[in-house]
Amino acid sequence: MTDEVYGGIEAGGTKFVCAVGTGPDDVRAETRFPTTTPDETIGRAVAFFEEQRQHWPLAAIGVGAFGPIDLRPGSATYGFVTSTPKPGWANTDFVGRLRAALAVPVAFDTDVNAAALGEHRWGAARDTDSCVYLTVGTGIGAGLIVNGQPVHGLVHPEAGHMLLRHDLAADPFPGACPFHGDCFEGLASGPALKQRWGRPAEELAGVDSVWQLEAHYIALALVNLICAASPQRIVLGGGVMQNDLLFPLIRRKVQTLLNGYVQSPAILQAIDRYIVPPGLGSRSGRLGAIALAQWA
Amino acid sequence: MTDEVYGGIEAGGTKFVCAVGTGPDDVRAETRFPTTTPDETIGRAVAFFEEQRQHWPLAAIGVGAFGPIDLRPGSATYGFVTSTPKPGWANTDFVGRLRAALAVPVAFDTDVNAAALGEHRWGAARDTDSCVYLTVGTGIGAGLIVNGQPVHGLVHPEAGHMLLRHDLAADPFPGACPFHGDCFEGLASGPALKQRWGRPAEELAGVDSVWQLEAHYIALALVNLICAASPQRIVLGGGVMQNDLLFPLIRRKVQTLLNGYVQSPAILQAIDRYIVPPGLGSRSGRLGAIALAQWA
Repeated sequence: MTDEVYGGIEAGGTKFVCAVGTGPDDVRAETRFPTTTPDETIGRAVAFFEEQRQHWPLAAIGVGAFGPIDLRPGSATYGFVTSTPKPGWANTDFVGRLRAALAVPVAFDTDVNAAALGEHRWGAARDTDSCVYLTVGTGIGAGLIVNGQPVHGLVHPEAGHMLLRHDLAADPFPGACPFHGDCFEGLASGPALKQRWGRPAEELAGVDSVWQLEAHYIALALVNLICAASPQRIVLGGGVMQNDLLFPLIRRKVQTLLNGYVQSPAILQAIDRYIVPPGLGSRSGRLGAIALAQWA
Repeated sequence: MTDEVYGGIEAGGTKFVCAVGTGPDDVRAETRFPTTTPDETIGRAVAFFEEQRQHWPLAAIGVGAFGPIDLRPGSATYGFVTSTPKPGWANTDFVGRLRAALAVPVAFDTDVNAAALGEHRWGAARDTDSCVYLTVGTGIGAGLIVNGQPVHGLVHPEAGHMLLRHDLAADPFPGACPFHGDCFEGLASGPALKQRWGRPAEELAGVDSVWQLEAHYIALALVNLICAASPQRIVLGGGVMQNDLLFPLIRRKVQTLLNGYVQSPAILQAIDRYIVPPGLGSRSGRLGAIALAQWA
């Protein structure tokens, strides 16, 4: 048995979490710091791993990054954060900087694909070979594992921008997405909730109509993900999902909307075990980044 | 070099097409007959392959079947057509009957996954590792290839039943799907067109408003498939797609709906080569079944 460890970076738009270890029961060290400039932020990550490798050999690093990012093998900008509005980060060679500084293999994916991989490897989807990890928070995004592998395809999935049924008579809110108005993220993200109801989600905790509508949009999106990709499990995370009312409402609405068409016991009888919270709690992203390092 | 051939069955709800060969340039024989009872229909397929194997060794058979079907490895009803309303076919052990009669390996998948595999192997998506094959005809269904493999997941994708935006003021038609009313299939299949406009699609060929609306729903569905699964190519087949007006309308509407968000040259600049007709013409299904036999 080797004493090698893997590094994981959960690279969010607000904060970075870096960890070293080999899995959920063996995280040797962890640090977190705000996302500022690329120089400072990537510099702090590098410093953390430099310090750690004095204690144990560092085999590889996995990064689950906010985006959009370039995942196309062979692309001149592979491993870059590309067109993000986040100041200073557009066209940043994230992977190149890590490789140059640390001289180890670097695996790179979206933050949500890393979280999906973490849940698939060690969490709520560990007994499946396909799953979706959907986060509903400041933004909405989904990571997709199919046949045990993260899905990239043309770019990477952007499930937050699916276009959903929107009954303007029942919900006249025009949506908050600067690109699409009332796409999924435009209707159901944390900022959309705040804009529609005039208060942040935390202050709306007990208001039934808020969560009925929120569950309705999440259920519409899940129906489309089920019909498009047929995942074996759906893991829902993110800040908005912290409201306990949501899971039962979403499950019931998914069943109602599908109306018996998808004849799987997972949906018809055991939906409590089909649409679930993260098995790794808030650690899906950083552990998924470690899984990415091992898997790559 | 061996003289072995592979058998393919394009098992549709209306007709079966059986072929033997090794690829699009080497189809040795082909036959077609209406889908009647399982006994008669599977019997005719078996008789065709029995006759063919007198000329060349039959290595395996691939089946792309109408559904719903059971694709779960290890399931007691693996290889069955399950809950179809088609008279006589519910709970038919399709794979078991073929194996018993022909004593060769049988690979089994949905009709649309087989067509997607055919297009991925030899057709319009042969330079990709992920694609969607969407058929718009009597029904609407999609086959999905990700990382070179057909996607099954929980059951199999049922993209015809995604729930789309439906502006009842602009299109008061309530939809034709017995399960969901105005899901994608309920709004845009051949029977839905006929119900909404009172005439079949062939008789509506020159009516611009018909095809604008049809292209709108297909574009909404493609946006959701792009956001959910990020395919590297989208192949559109089926009877309704035979109208030449549709492709340019669909491509433009997909660009408009995505509004620059998915920053891929395939969508922004070369959408004519991204959303395309089948490279194998009407042969995607039967050749895909042969590919399935080889691949399995």
